Amino acid sequence: MAEALSGFRPRRRTAAETIPVAGALHRIPVASLTAPHALPGFARSTVDGYAVRAADTYGVSDGLPGYLDVAGAVQMGAAPDVAVGPGTVVSMPTGGVLPPGADAVIMVEYTQQAMPGTIEVVRPVAPGEGVVRADEDAAPGAELVPAGRPLRAHDLGMLAAAGITSVAVHARPRVTVFSTGDEVVPPGTPVLRPGQVRDASAVALAALVSESGGEPVPGGIVPDDPDALEAALRAALTGSDVIVISAGSSVGARDGTAAAVGRLGEPGIWCHGLAIKPGKPTLLADCGGVPVIGLPGNPRSALVVFRLIGMPLVRRVGGCTSPPAESVLRARLQRDLPSATGRLDVVQVRVRDGIATPIFGLSALLSILTAADGYVIIPEEATGLDSGAEVEVTLYR
Amino acid sequence: MAEALSGFRPRRRTAAETIPVAGALHRIPVASLTAPHALPGFARSTVDGYAVRAADTYGVSDGLPGYLDVAGAVQMGAAPDVAVGPGTVVSMPTGGVLPPGADAVIMVEYTQQAMPGTIEVVRPVAPGEGVVRADEDAAPGAELVPAGRPLRAHDLGMLAAAGITSVAVHARPRVTVFSTGDEVVPPGTPVLRPGQVRDASAVALAALVSESGGEPVPGGIVPDDPDALEAALRAALTGSDVIVISAGSSVGARDGTAAAVGRLGEPGIWCHGLAIKPGKPTLLADCGGVPVIGLPGNPRSALVVFRLIGMPLVRRVGGCTSPPAESVLRARLQRDLPSATGRLDVVQVRVRDGIATPIFGLSALLSILTAADGYVIIPEEATGLDSGAEVEVTLYR
Repeated sequence: MAEALSGFRPRRRTAAETIPVAGALHRIPVASLTAPHALPGFARSTVDGYAVRAADTYGVSDGLPGYLDVAGAVQMGAAPDVAVGPGTVVSMPTGGVLPPGADAVIMVEYTQQAMPGTIEVVRPVAPGEGVVRADEDAAPGAELVPAGRPLRAHDLGMLAAAGITSVAVHARPRVTVFSTGDEVVPPGTPVLRPGQVRDASAVALAALVSESGGEPVPGGIVPDDPDALEAALRAALTGSDVIVISAGSSVGARDGTAAAVGRLGEPGIWCHGLAIKPGKPTLLADCGGVPVIGLPGNPRSALVVFRLIGMPLVRRVGGCTSPPAESVLRARLQRDLPSATGRLDVVQVRVRDGIATPIFGLSALLSILTAADGYVIIPEEATGLDSGAEVEVTLYR
Repeated sequence: MAEALSGFRPRRRTAAETIPVAGALHRIPVASLTAPHALPGFARSTVDGYAVRAADTYGVSDGLPGYLDVAGAVQMGAAPDVAVGPGTVVSMPTGGVLPPGADAVIMVEYTQQAMPGTIEVVRPVAPGEGVVRADEDAAPGAELVPAGRPLRAHDLGMLAAAGITSVAVHARPRVTVFSTGDEVVPPGTPVLRPGQVRDASAVALAALVSESGGEPVPGGIVPDDPDALEAALRAALTGSDVIVISAGSSVGARDGTAAAVGRLGEPGIWCHGLAIKPGKPTLLADCGGVPVIGLPGNPRSALVVFRLIGMPLVRRVGGCTSPPAESVLRARLQRDLPSATGRLDVVQVRVRDGIATPIFGLSALLSILTAADGYVIIPEEATGLDSGAEVEVTLYR
């Protein structure tokens, strides 16, 4: 597993596309974006009060107030029409432009009107106090957002502040999702014939593709026939950045999937079989530059493996170099969890009051996943985890 | 803050709408969904092997193999055309229907062909082994997904397995976002006049609305004029489930916002001013059944408050009773963080190698947010946090 996670590194990356900033939440910039000019762009008051020459306030106190003449007022969103000279102040709203001559703004709370046109000041201010510098939010050319990190809400705000309204981002990876199996029928099938099951994996995998920033493309259900599967995969190669197959569950079906994938293109199959439970019969391939993941036939195993291997792959193909953090919670194990050394185990758990209770059951059961709050990983080197041990639960969301 | 978080509880909830399961990721079911029939619906093999009467394998071992006749084979997705009788087995693929007469499936690994039509069995199986029961994933009527919890990828899979292809969910709350201020101009304004700033809050707030499951509706920029604001808000009341105003930054503008909101409808303003830093000049109101949040004029303060108060409110209005877990990380504080008792402080931090380094600066600066990996909360009852203290960092994503 460690080898698969670090070693399977297809080079494919999606191309750039330019989109409006307003629709760019969680999208991945192809390059860092920099400030075209200083921000906020002018020295601005951070308080309601009076623009002043700081030196005119030195030494004032409650006992020895200073008296300054109000030369005018700054209006929001407008250039000051008056300067601050020695012994004078200009009335300022928060966010107003600092007038020429002033180097600080004294808060209105530290002043009072002495007589019409004159204020009394009882507290000195230092130069720069009550003011945000013209380039304090960003100097010209400063990096506003880095390449490769999903854009956050406040990143979009920063770009808007800088007048940047469109952004070059990686196109969402197109991820074609196939289901295979003679027994698999579309979810909309109202009545099942004996032995049929509805396709649970495709819709769930499509959702995980979306969560990892990809665009799921329905590949449909392919029967257990390597030639039919090969033809379907080959047709999907040109329009896909990643191909995902939830393989048939039987040995024959899995071998058929491997055979079909093996014929698709070079360098071909990278591994077939992973030391993970559930999820052992996983296949990883790079077919003519398109990464291909063959998932186990059991929906639960397929979803566990896709979370661990598929989602990071889709993110990488989509140019994401700083994946978002998972939601994790520390909890204590309610019972011993045995595991074989050399195999990574993914154990579904419920968490209540800081206690993680494992949910056991056949890997064919999806209900194990829907009942879980998250999962615990028993690493490859461990032989298990003890009851009461503190574990990290990765939470579903 | 604690009072605001627990006490401001507008009753508004969005109506139900029915949507396809394939598009329902993270949507909120209005009611729990139950299994219309047993799942998988038939007893199924979990291994490749032979369906057998378990009793026929009792006592066999490597030294004393049992011999059983192969009466036929089950095909994937089809009803068995043969039963299992005493002394006979039926060949089974993983996922195949257990034939009549059989109560277990023995793995192919524990068998070998003795002669054409006969297998040798070297390991006994218990009844039920190698089989998933017809109702083991879900009994008829069992809850598949609860009401009020955002649908997860595997929930969609479970619904698909049950043949449920559409789901009644809460409509996304329509959240109208207004910006106010004579100095505020649209982000697309290429050249600013002195004193103008581009609207950074609207696009960022819209993104946070989307993240919390709402549908942002642009309200536009309203000048610092209570009558104009009141008219704009009143026009938005009918089409909004929540109204958000990033208020002007000056005292006069904030008072104007409060005056406009106060005239909108009963019960009206719930609080004006919160013991939070940054974010003190926050206004919460319920105007004729529409929750209204007046945010501080500084974009950074506005976004901090909206994360803490606005996002949970949007989720609640959208019917979400089990909000998704935040991504949190434990780290050690790189320096002392002073704070006033009775005030909740939200401190932006960078995290490297388990050390959380606070980023200080004026609340007018958005760059403090874009430079941060997440934030630390200093609770109201604390007078600060010590250098080296373990803190929980809520990570941005």
